[in-house]
Amino acid sequence: VRVEGDKSFIIIIVHSFNINGDIYSAKMKIHKKRWNIRASEMSKNTLNPIRAIVDGMKLSPNPDKAMIALSIGDPTVFGNLPTDEKVLQAMKDAMDSHKYNGYAPSVGYQKSREAVANFYCSPEAPLEADDVILTSGCSQAIELAISVLCNPGNNILVPCPGFSLYKTLAVSLGIEIKHYNLLPEKSWEIDLQNLESLIDEKTACLVVNNPSNPCGSVYSKEHLQDILAVASRHCIPILADEIYGDMVFPEHTFYSMAPLTNDVPILSCGGLAKRWLVPGWRMGWILIHDRNQAFGQEIREGLVKLSQRILGACTIVQGALEAILNSTPQEFYQDTIGFLKSNSEICFSALSSIPGLNPVRPSGAMYLMVGIEMENFPEFENDVDFTEHLVTEQSVFCLPATAFEYPNYFRIVVTVPEDMMVEACSRIREFCQLHYRPCNQESNDLDQ
Amino acid sequence: VRVEGDKSFIIIIVHSFNINGDIYSAKMKIHKKRWNIRASEMSKNTLNPIRAIVDGMKLSPNPDKAMIALSIGDPTVFGNLPTDEKVLQAMKDAMDSHKYNGYAPSVGYQKSREAVANFYCSPEAPLEADDVILTSGCSQAIELAISVLCNPGNNILVPCPGFSLYKTLAVSLGIEIKHYNLLPEKSWEIDLQNLESLIDEKTACLVVNNPSNPCGSVYSKEHLQDILAVASRHCIPILADEIYGDMVFPEHTFYSMAPLTNDVPILSCGGLAKRWLVPGWRMGWILIHDRNQAFGQEIREGLVKLSQRILGACTIVQGALEAILNSTPQEFYQDTIGFLKSNSEICFSALSSIPGLNPVRPSGAMYLMVGIEMENFPEFENDVDFTEHLVTEQSVFCLPATAFEYPNYFRIVVTVPEDMMVEACSRIREFCQLHYRPCNQESNDLDQ
Ligand SMILES: Cc1ncc(COP(=O)(O)O)c(C=O)c1O
Ligand SMILES: Cc1ncc(COP(=O)(O)O)c(C=O)c1O
Repeated sequence: VRVEGDKSFIIIIVHSFNINGDIYSAKMKIHKKRWNIRASEMSKNTLNPIRAIVDGMKLSPNPDKAMIALSIGDPTVFGNLPTDEKVLQAMKDAMDSHKYNGYAPSVGYQKSREAVANFYCSPEAPLEADDVILTSGCSQAIELAISVLCNPGNNILVPCPGFSLYKTLAVSLGIEIKHYNLLPEKSWEIDLQNLESLIDEKTACLVVNNPSNPCGSVYSKEHLQDILAVASRHCIPILADEIYGDMVFPEHTFYSMAPLTNDVPILSCGGLAKRWLVPGWRMGWILIHDRNQAFGQEIREGLVKLSQRILGACTIVQGALEAILNSTPQEFYQDTIGFLKSNSEICFSALSSIPGLNPVRPSGAMYLMVGIEMENFPEFENDVDFTEHLVTEQSVFCLPATAFEYPNYFRIVVTVPEDMMVEACSRIREFCQLHYRPCNQESNDLDQ
Repeated sequence: VRVEGDKSFIIIIVHSFNINGDIYSAKMKIHKKRWNIRASEMSKNTLNPIRAIVDGMKLSPNPDKAMIALSIGDPTVFGNLPTDEKVLQAMKDAMDSHKYNGYAPSVGYQKSREAVANFYCSPEAPLEADDVILTSGCSQAIELAISVLCNPGNNILVPCPGFSLYKTLAVSLGIEIKHYNLLPEKSWEIDLQNLESLIDEKTACLVVNNPSNPCGSVYSKEHLQDILAVASRHCIPILADEIYGDMVFPEHTFYSMAPLTNDVPILSCGGLAKRWLVPGWRMGWILIHDRNQAFGQEIREGLVKLSQRILGACTIVQGALEAILNSTPQEFYQDTIGFLKSNSEICFSALSSIPGLNPVRPSGAMYLMVGIEMENFPEFENDVDFTEHLVTEQSVFCLPATAFEYPNYFRIVVTVPEDMMVEACSRIREFCQLHYRPCNQESNDLDQ
């Protein structure tokens, strides 16, 4: 007997056995069970467009210029926008109380939910503790909202350009997404006709992000009412991503969607991340607005069940939540907004005067979108190519808006310190001046 | 024209129109679009057996006796098991540093992952930062592990009795679960023959929970090696839920699974919840053990992608993690274990002497399972009925083990203060003495 083979199979050779005087030899091949572990379809379908694009870019900054990243949606990275002392104090008090180390209910402490309800309550859209579900960041709020409203095979309507998480979550759950257009020439209002044309019997939810990442737009009351009219006509519930709620420049007003409708049910998603400048703390919430009983008990119970999968936010932050909401001074909010407005004005006016660029004036949030007249930059193929070279030559990184499914724009984050913003804008000017080629509007290639 | 109808439809009646001299009348029924929002299948399939059973119980305590809940798997509720001062100090330091308010990478800060890797590293099963993924509690670790290894239609093997979350998560994802038996007479070792018989070509993962909730069992090295041999033979990866790792009584030893195998790939799930007594902080982790390259890059990348869905743990806790792991004094761990051991001894010996009850001696974790000889308690139908009456008469609540798919047992949590444990045991004795009916083993009902 002889045994051959590598790890995958064994060959057993039995020589010379004798049957009725004849000599036989035999071979037997035994397949060994092998390790064959594949990542699940769900993990493979969890796509991150920003990573996919940024990882594919050759980002080698100019060694003679310090890197300026205008790409990071984290207001804390430069240290110029710290949270308020009261917010930190609330956390320490929560810790010192020794009351917030154990498990909270999966939807959050009753007192913390009550605090959120009181903070966002309005006469038109009242809220009670039971209407609030605390989550691990606004991201989990969005995940729970999509998960409770949609089945595989359904579709959801999401803005284009828009925050990529809606798609990431939906696609991983087998939910189709349909992009509706925002109109840069109308300060990124929704193209309502386009929106309405996308609705079909499989549409389970309309996602509205106001104020907007990546646009920095803030919708008027009238526009929000028009959006609600579409939802009402087709009986589509709304996921209102209002994480930038109240972060609007002084001459503008933020309208939450819920008080503007009596019939359209709304899951409003928010959190501490942006307005309180603590995105790492992972404190988010869903506000359930359902005065028309269209969600009914079923959606509420579904949300409670889903919250039990991994439980929600850190209890220390939950314990601090009431004080954070009620003790943060108005000046803190005003200072943040003042800074964002001033920085975005600097950026907008600097870029407005650069031939070939079309910045769209923002009204809130922390972003600004800039259109690139690609025909004037014939050296570059698209926004990804353009922003890649901006890094190579000027060490300024802006996110190409292809990451938001909106080519030939790039997004600027306006949370960087003012001097960096000024410097970045002058480098962008230098870059554009070097590469700009005027197009003769009268002639074209064919004439020559 | 006349319009009738309620909210759901409109009837338009057009009277008396004249076609070629004949008079006609017509009716047209127009269905109005209605709100019809249903909770998703996933939310409906997110089942919580503990809630389902407890919510169905009539829990009205005896007004003359203070309630003693031996049911809550939260060691912090009675205040007798605070976390260590060093743990709280680490959190305050993290907060005061102002360095941990922004977004961390979705898998956690590099330094925090490194701290976990160093803490759990062994020569047989080395770990680096890249082998660690930080999560929002051990629950999210389990969710990510199941999500990356299994597709809908696969099955996973889970212990019976066992922690219910495995089933909750799997079923909601369309993954089948198969229960393998634990043997109370062998200190809850796995019935290996039964385990092996359940494996088929759809089996994607074997879940091993050691030390065990609800059993309080701790497996020997030999038993773990036998389990690994089954996994190796069938090439099934292991999800090792080791959240109670190192929480074993002095005369026992905890063996993590990973160092005991060279070929079986293991995702070891753990966290701060139990050993550091801060379950509310939602700090968990996955340790990827794959010395045989059976997971390969694919599973690692899948886990990273899944971690980007909602991001992981609160950054303050992440920032404190290194100090928590490295500065918590040994006495803290020893004191906790000393208390758990002493309390479980008190409970075990008290219940051992009660006719009709068969407690199984635990070796670690925070639990103790008690068998009920139902034939000796003919008044009660099952463990749910038994524990319900224990509340009504004695104001002592123990979780019926039907919640762990294991009828006719109940689980006791041994984290309550000693005097409550003593009092609870004496009330259980009184209850049992009142309801116990000896069975004559020689005779039976038919003889009489
Ligand atoms: C529009 C939008 N929604 C949701 C989020 C996620 O917020 P969180 O960090 O609280 O999960 C972000 C973060 O950038 C965002 O821009
Ligand atoms: C066996 C087991 N695994 C996991 C968990 C969940 O731990 P965490 O609270 O960190 O999510 C628990 C909690 O009770 C448990 O008993």
